[in-house]
Amino acid sequence: MRQAPASKKPQDRYETALLGLVAYRELSAFERLSSDARFSPTLVDRESLARLAVAEFGHYELVREHIAAKGLDIQETMEPFIESIDALHERTKPGDWYESLIKAYVIDEVSADFYRAISQQLGDEARTLVASVQTSEQQTGWLRERLRLSLCDDPRLASRLALWGRRLLGEALTQARSIGEQYDYWGAADAVAHNDSTQPMTALFAHLVENHSRRMSALGLTA
Amino acid sequence: MRQAPASKKPQDRYETALLGLVAYRELSAFERLSSDARFSPTLVDRESLARLAVAEFGHYELVREHIAAKGLDIQETMEPFIESIDALHERTKPGDWYESLIKAYVIDEVSADFYRAISQQLGDEARTLVASVQTSEQQTGWLRERLRLSLCDDPRLASRLALWGRRLLGEALTQARSIGEQYDYWGAADAVAHNDSTQPMTALFAHLVENHSRRMSALGLTA
Repeated sequence: MRQAPASKKPQDRYETALLGLVAYRELSAFERLSSDARFSPTLVDRESLARLAVAEFGHYELVREHIAAKGLDIQETMEPFIESIDALHERTKPGDWYESLIKAYVIDEVSADFYRAISQQLGDEARTLVASVQTSEQQTGWLRERLRLSLCDDPRLASRLALWGRRLLGEALTQARSIGEQYDYWGAADAVAHNDSTQPMTALFAHLVENHSRRMSALGLTA
Repeated sequence: MRQAPASKKPQDRYETALLGLVAYRELSAFERLSSDARFSPTLVDRESLARLAVAEFGHYELVREHIAAKGLDIQETMEPFIESIDALHERTKPGDWYESLIKAYVIDEVSADFYRAISQQLGDEARTLVASVQTSEQQTGWLRERLRLSLCDDPRLASRLALWGRRLLGEALTQARSIGEQYDYWGAADAVAHNDSTQPMTALFAHLVENHSRRMSALGLTA
């Protein structure tokens, strides 16, 4: 994994990295989701998944504008994250449409939680950006209801999707840790060095797992 | 291929068929293009192709609203065209990114010409709709320039892409003929029966081929 473009202050470097990370995640999420849409069981489902994908592309466009406004190169900014994000997608290819829905549900939400935690270390601008690229409650709601309906129609799906959800969580956390370490957890590592009474990293991961469990329970699945 | 939902007047039946045809073509074009975007040679290309795909989805949403406003069911309206359009996509899977660009360039434009010709037989509403879902000149321009650049970089591409372009034209025309026949060429067949001095179908196909040749020439390719 290459480093983000060099910058004077660590704060700038962290901000640039966050922009690149979010931008590439949104672009690749668009591509994967829209490819999966084709395998939807009904036309209405195809349309809904396509709409979700298009929303991700809208987020990408937003971040791209931020990056351009800062005078940074979009390609260079995303570059350090491509290999890692592509590899995660390759390792988590959905076997069918339901796995694709769970992937959108799990990875989007864990990522959103992770970005939110990162942006707390940065300024208001980063916080606003992260908030603006979050999947809307309407769309998360659609995913949840659609999954609930499928699980109700075919209870045998439950164990397979629960297992798949755990695998996705594992992959997402491994990636968060690896990227986090490379960027000193966006400055949180410094904070710890100066005041080692807390372990914010442990707290962050516990928080990510807890939120995930809550979301899986909302589907009636064991996290 | 199933018939479009029954309606009293042939004119209504033709209009409904046009809506269903355009809607499904846009939805499937979105899915295919966005899947292809992943294989783009550069990030900028990925972004541009994704933007093209998102525009197709925007067109789909527009047609969907028209269909809903008429009190028709979107799924039922698209149904008669699914098999034929899916089959065309299966027969024309791009072998690489360049073939994917040519596919967008050829099929979009031939379809647009075909819809425009059909809509001349129908009312103002149909004409306005067809105009509103056309690929923008900006996007067609991007496709043309991007293809020209690739052909300039690698002249060996020319013969392969010229051959591919001819195959795509053949597939598009075969489909247009098959759908056209099923819908009496949107009323043009009646006009001919009453006044058989002209052969509008022959003229329509000659027009489609001529426009295609002009577009291929614009790339420096032999149509």
